[in-house]
Amino acid sequence: MSPDDSAQRSTPKRRRGSVLEAALLDAAWEELVNKGYDRFTIESVAERAHTSRDVIYRRWPSKAELLQAAATRAGKQEEVVVPDTGTLRGDLIELLQQASRTRAHLAVHMILQLGGYHAETGASLADLRSAFLSERGNAMQIILERAVARGEVDPAKLTPRVIAVPFDLYRQELLMTLKAVPDEAAESILDEVFLPLVAVD
Amino acid sequence: MSPDDSAQRSTPKRRRGSVLEAALLDAAWEELVNKGYDRFTIESVAERAHTSRDVIYRRWPSKAELLQAAATRAGKQEEVVVPDTGTLRGDLIELLQQASRTRAHLAVHMILQLGGYHAETGASLADLRSAFLSERGNAMQIILERAVARGEVDPAKLTPRVIAVPFDLYRQELLMTLKAVPDEAAESILDEVFLPLVAVD
Repeated sequence: MSPDDSAQRSTPKRRRGSVLEAALLDAAWEELVNKGYDRFTIESVAERAHTSRDVIYRRWPSKAELLQAAATRAGKQEEVVVPDTGTLRGDLIELLQQASRTRAHLAVHMILQLGGYHAETGASLADLRSAFLSERGNAMQIILERAVARGEVDPAKLTPRVIAVPFDLYRQELLMTLKAVPDEAAESILDEVFLPLVAVD
Repeated sequence: MSPDDSAQRSTPKRRRGSVLEAALLDAAWEELVNKGYDRFTIESVAERAHTSRDVIYRRWPSKAELLQAAATRAGKQEEVVVPDTGTLRGDLIELLQQASRTRAHLAVHMILQLGGYHAETGASLADLRSAFLSERGNAMQIILERAVARGEVDPAKLTPRVIAVPFDLYRQELLMTLKAVPDEAAESILDEVFLPLVAVD
């Protein structure tokens, strides 16, 4: 047995640069999801990532900055499969259901932790919005472009406010009920509000 | 000086029945607004109302029940002036601005306290919705009836989901920004979403 082998067995390989950074952000994200913001500490993230607090503080000087970076990475990593059912309604129902399956639990968690987060950082969910909505926003864009190409949607009606309506109303349901949004609510958002707003006259 | 006079000066008149109940609920509401749910205690409500905890516990066995009753009373007491500008748009802009002036601060407060409230009671804002939305809901109803009578609105389009859209989107703005909703956002909610949805074709 060479000395190298023994060294490798007793301590993990030293991680550097982007590999280390990714491991730290993943650990931070897991801590947030498992414990919530109030009980999330740099100490516990360091433990989970098998490193020291200094290694983390050197990169993100505060809990809020670490969380923002972790959320950005989690948002980018999430695999959003862009539905392609052949109709705008079918695509959007799948997109909302996908969000309910993969994101609703986390979103409710964020809402419940918002008091502590806001008290400590002064930040709001709008400040985290770009991190969270990037991939989902791209999917919405692709779905709408296809619907325009099929002649289902009037592109003149697609203002930023209107494009945001399905997920704005979806988020409002999460806020009020603190539960995954049921299919009937998603269908009512689309059939009674969004689709009538964007349809070609 | 009669003995009665002296008794009246040294201790407050004994309050009973609905007078006492109203005083207790007002005290609870003020405590909630000033301190937030997490720091709101039956003890502090009792102090503010110059009574004992037992007097409160006899009527509302838990903090959550006391809060629900206090919210219901506050919701009923709030004076909602039903705007009557002559147009649906004018009426709704005034209603949303009224909410921003009188309610936004409190609503943001409730959102930030939601974690503690939910952890303790398992309840959501939907469970408090009827208490909070009653007067505002009536105003919306009156405004819409007038608009239908003027021929501005197609009554067939007024489903419960659609009627809720202005305040659902308004509440979503509060959740995301934790600030009073600016006039431009209220106008965009009405001009880009609600008014096109309900207008007579």
